[in-house]
Amino acid sequence: MLTNNHKKLVKSLLQKKQRDIHSCFVAEGPKVIGEFIQAGFRLQHLFSTDMSLFAEENTIQVNEKELKAMSYLTSPNACLAVFAIPTEKRLPDSGLKVALDAIRDPGNLGTIIRLCDWFGVTQLLCSSDTVDCYNPKVVQATMGSLARVDIQYLDLKAYLADTKLPVYGAFMDGESVYKHALPEDGILVMGNEANGIGSDIEEWVTKRISIPRFGELQETESLNVATAAAIILSEFKRATI
Amino acid sequence: MLTNNHKKLVKSLLQKKQRDIHSCFVAEGPKVIGEFIQAGFRLQHLFSTDMSLFAEENTIQVNEKELKAMSYLTSPNACLAVFAIPTEKRLPDSGLKVALDAIRDPGNLGTIIRLCDWFGVTQLLCSSDTVDCYNPKVVQATMGSLARVDIQYLDLKAYLADTKLPVYGAFMDGESVYKHALPEDGILVMGNEANGIGSDIEEWVTKRISIPRFGELQETESLNVATAAAIILSEFKRATI
Repeated sequence: MLTNNHKKLVKSLLQKKQRDIHSCFVAEGPKVIGEFIQAGFRLQHLFSTDMSLFAEENTIQVNEKELKAMSYLTSPNACLAVFAIPTEKRLPDSGLKVALDAIRDPGNLGTIIRLCDWFGVTQLLCSSDTVDCYNPKVVQATMGSLARVDIQYLDLKAYLADTKLPVYGAFMDGESVYKHALPEDGILVMGNEANGIGSDIEEWVTKRISIPRFGELQETESLNVATAAAIILSEFKRATI
Repeated sequence: MLTNNHKKLVKSLLQKKQRDIHSCFVAEGPKVIGEFIQAGFRLQHLFSTDMSLFAEENTIQVNEKELKAMSYLTSPNACLAVFAIPTEKRLPDSGLKVALDAIRDPGNLGTIIRLCDWFGVTQLLCSSDTVDCYNPKVVQATMGSLARVDIQYLDLKAYLADTKLPVYGAFMDGESVYKHALPEDGILVMGNEANGIGSDIEEWVTKRISIPRFGELQETESLNVATAAAIILSEFKRATI
């Protein structure tokens, strides 16, 4: 049965602080919830208006009004789940990794997680000031990809200082990504929406790359960070086939 | 001097119908406005809290409160301008063009316009049910790129039926974009966020292409349309260098 404690918990999980305390997050809708279940995330609570959606025991039936009161979405979608945040895995020092330096927009983070999933990048490193990947906007934007990418928040500078892998960074003045031989193992750093890669991180970048601009006027300031990540990841991966 | 008619006009231009009637649109902030002026867009009204920003005659000084009342933004940025919508140019049948079939999200359209500008694609064709490019969210998201890309709304099916150019379409089951020889002249069709390319448009696609998926699990459903456009445009352009 739905209790006031359930309602309070769900409401509190809008805040990162509360997600950290409870070590859980909210996902909504049959598709997104289904992907997390399939990926082995531990389900703590499932509230649903339709008991036939999932075979999970302990599903709590709610009515439309109750769901609407709990939902973070303007149009709630049949069910809402609370999942445990997985404990962090240790990162093996091989393969291609993406590292984000202070990405602030949940939509950009969501798009980059989806891209990592598409291109088989299973490890995403985030500087500690990057937006939280369990932010509800990120969870919904990733369409389940969040369940298939291992995301770690860490001291990015310390990590890069310590790694043996080549560190690629996207800069306006870098070498053309089309002409550079790209390796199978490495770290690709993408910088903040407004300021790019910070100078403390830039120090550890070993290869500066850029996406050539083709417009005649050469006035386009920059590409959106998620768009740039898409093009560079595509280049890394096409080099492996 | 700021009049009630000015205020009414700006407010009315939030609606596409009114933008069509008045044949003008709103842009905000020194950077975005500056790019439209530089690109030769005809300025109809300029309201500014800071008379030193632009050398335009007839600039109307407003105070912060007046600007806030007119602005579409939650944080108004010094100035707001009304520009005339340029009359449509005729499309030469060469070069690379992008065609959009029923793109609905202003953010996606804005990102695609910015991409066209970056990759030197000066012609963007939109089906008549694609979101309006003078929608305020699109204008602000393009960061001035809107001023450098020629955008036409048209009967996309009729246009494609009539063109002599090869028509490329992005589908899940297409040939790998990495392995296909891509031409300098052609049309790249990108489809709606939820439904992809409609069957009436698909009929006129001569080359089906796709972006290979690298994830082991092969469960990622699809890439966002703007992300997919970024990767495919990058492939078309890298083939020309």
